[in-house]
Amino acid sequence: MKENTPESLEEIPSGSVVTPKEFQASGIYCGLKTTKNRPDIGVIFSKIPAAGAALFTTNKICAAPVVLGKKIIKQGKLRAIIVNSGNANACTGERGYKNAEEMALTASKLLEISEEEILVSSTGVIGKHLPMDKISAGIEQASRSLGNTAAHGNAIAQAIMTTDTLPKSIAIKVKTSGNEILIGGISKGSGMISPNLATMLCFLTTDVRISAELLQTCLKSSADQSFNRITIDGHMSTNDTIAILANGASGVEITSAGTKLTLFQEGLDYVTRYLAKAIVMDGEGATKFIQIFVKGAKSFADATKIARTIADSPLVKTAMNGSDPNWGRIVSAAGYAGVELDEAHTTLYINNILVYEKGMPASFDYGVLKTSMQKQDIFICLQIGTGNYSDTIWTCDLSKEYISINADYHT
Amino acid sequence: MKENTPESLEEIPSGSVVTPKEFQASGIYCGLKTTKNRPDIGVIFSKIPAAGAALFTTNKICAAPVVLGKKIIKQGKLRAIIVNSGNANACTGERGYKNAEEMALTASKLLEISEEEILVSSTGVIGKHLPMDKISAGIEQASRSLGNTAAHGNAIAQAIMTTDTLPKSIAIKVKTSGNEILIGGISKGSGMISPNLATMLCFLTTDVRISAELLQTCLKSSADQSFNRITIDGHMSTNDTIAILANGASGVEITSAGTKLTLFQEGLDYVTRYLAKAIVMDGEGATKFIQIFVKGAKSFADATKIARTIADSPLVKTAMNGSDPNWGRIVSAAGYAGVELDEAHTTLYINNILVYEKGMPASFDYGVLKTSMQKQDIFICLQIGTGNYSDTIWTCDLSKEYISINADYHT
Repeated sequence: MKENTPESLEEIPSGSVVTPKEFQASGIYCGLKTTKNRPDIGVIFSKIPAAGAALFTTNKICAAPVVLGKKIIKQGKLRAIIVNSGNANACTGERGYKNAEEMALTASKLLEISEEEILVSSTGVIGKHLPMDKISAGIEQASRSLGNTAAHGNAIAQAIMTTDTLPKSIAIKVKTSGNEILIGGISKGSGMISPNLATMLCFLTTDVRISAELLQTCLKSSADQSFNRITIDGHMSTNDTIAILANGASGVEITSAGTKLTLFQEGLDYVTRYLAKAIVMDGEGATKFIQIFVKGAKSFADATKIARTIADSPLVKTAMNGSDPNWGRIVSAAGYAGVELDEAHTTLYINNILVYEKGMPASFDYGVLKTSMQKQDIFICLQIGTGNYSDTIWTCDLSKEYISINADYHT
Repeated sequence: MKENTPESLEEIPSGSVVTPKEFQASGIYCGLKTTKNRPDIGVIFSKIPAAGAALFTTNKICAAPVVLGKKIIKQGKLRAIIVNSGNANACTGERGYKNAEEMALTASKLLEISEEEILVSSTGVIGKHLPMDKISAGIEQASRSLGNTAAHGNAIAQAIMTTDTLPKSIAIKVKTSGNEILIGGISKGSGMISPNLATMLCFLTTDVRISAELLQTCLKSSADQSFNRITIDGHMSTNDTIAILANGASGVEITSAGTKLTLFQEGLDYVTRYLAKAIVMDGEGATKFIQIFVKGAKSFADATKIARTIADSPLVKTAMNGSDPNWGRIVSAAGYAGVELDEAHTTLYINNILVYEKGMPASFDYGVLKTSMQKQDIFICLQIGTGNYSDTIWTCDLSKEYISINADYHT
């Protein structure tokens, strides 16, 4: 999963959302999670005004904070994100919406900023009203705990976790003609992940100066090559949110296309790809990281459809779990993707070993392939030969652990 | 899952495809299955000429016998079905097609009928060439073993099994003004099941006299209310086939719409529903039978889409496995079905207990609902309030046993 770092970028050890200048964060325990002392509420804050952009789930059933967030982000200004885990505030009707508004109001008083610069976000169980006494006390404590040390960065990354086993955090430095821009980010999975817009929570900070419009374009483009390329269980969440705050504290300004924008976009893409892949690696019960590359399709949409259908097939996912070269499941999944396919022009490689060539089984060393599949990374390459478009989807396997986690998550 | 038997019908104890007059069958072991002495090849045979109809998978990657079968069925005549398990003869190219033809040729000589009256069918692992020596010897032995006892009916039902734990077989008597028609059937699952046409193997026999055209119409209609209403893992197979033979031996003839046709269709529907539900009940690792009823949709297609999306969500399926009233997963799955939905008009019942009403969580006794969900049958009823159409999908839960079965099926 690890990729090469481009020359213009530098990863910052223990970097997070507080690495870019003038950002602070906190994560504390307020009693939402059943396991005591695991952070479950947090704040990301820019000490100076910042532009903001965000993307949200396309699920028709979306959570109260998402409904509110869509309204807030239209202003293009964002100085703080208030986020809780342990309760999604979804399917909670009018009362849920009022609770989300109240979270913003509480934070605005404590942080002394406008409610219209605050994005509220929630993740966790659906269909339960937020315990507003705990939430309000939590926001107060989190607002008092703000800081920019590595511990603060780690605390906010932990505060957004649900079934994640590890916090996911990164920061990089983008070098641009004598100056530098910092970009930081955190994300959380690790079930209800399906690519169609956001698919989880991801919060990004940067100290570049950029307009909200341009930032939104950069974010959309970056999500398309990261979070929209992953799937864990194909179940789209009600709460998916990606948001970015850009406060200009670096003194570097981007106003239009050019080298600076290219470098910034490259940096942002690196950060979002890292965070998206980290979600897959930490997918519920995941033991494998699977890259599915479909090429030779008639359109990009066709390539995507086939790759996603393969990625979401429980039969493919269980075969991968068993390190089993059961390639018929991969080919047959492609066959029901709803896309034109000619068996006589379909060829499949697993870990660069040819297993199926132009509609016929290829002879290969079963033992060698099986051994190669026992490693964590699996690379599936399907060529369908109807055109020139390709796409990649990243996913994980389906294990007994996924069942354990999800058969009892509710209580 | 058991439904009331209409007055015009009577279930025949130990009935199967050999119950209708002048039908014979056999099932023997020829060495395709790894477990010795489990029947893996069989024949269904009508001693007199018969009309035939069939439906096949819509997967773009379809097995050699399916390609051949689509050609054969156009003639409208069918006297024999030759079927093997343990090897799907799919993704096997030109050689696979020739092997399917050879199976028909071998059988035609032994049964002394035309190759054009023979349907070949295969199920099992994809991408391996059939061992034709074993197959030919198997067809010969199976042809010599034909008979019409309960043991013969049971043998053919076993010969089509792959990961099924039980043979699935039924026969009924349809009473029609002094006369009677017999209908028998067998089916097999139990993975790679997704509703879109056939979705598994099902072979039906009847002694009514009917034209191939009318029989095809009856079969399509019957599949739509049975096999097209089930899903196990959402993975559409390359080999799905439903076929029916009608030999006229009862002396009852149906030539057009009327009471006789209505009663026959009712009987056929009863048989296919029984066999479809039996596949779900015996779904790989299944511990629950789940009925998903969506009503108040704008169109039938919308209702189907929502019901299928809920049925295929691994998060819904694992919650059911854990007898867990995690209703947020059901509602959120409906939200990404790609269908118009208004949360304020969405209401959900689980086992007739109201859990979500018009976009708001309902108060219900968690313990009572949880206890009711520990039973085998679960009934999910989602009302979306955008129109007057409804649909039902039957599915099962997702268990650790499913993972065990599918992580190691290949070898």
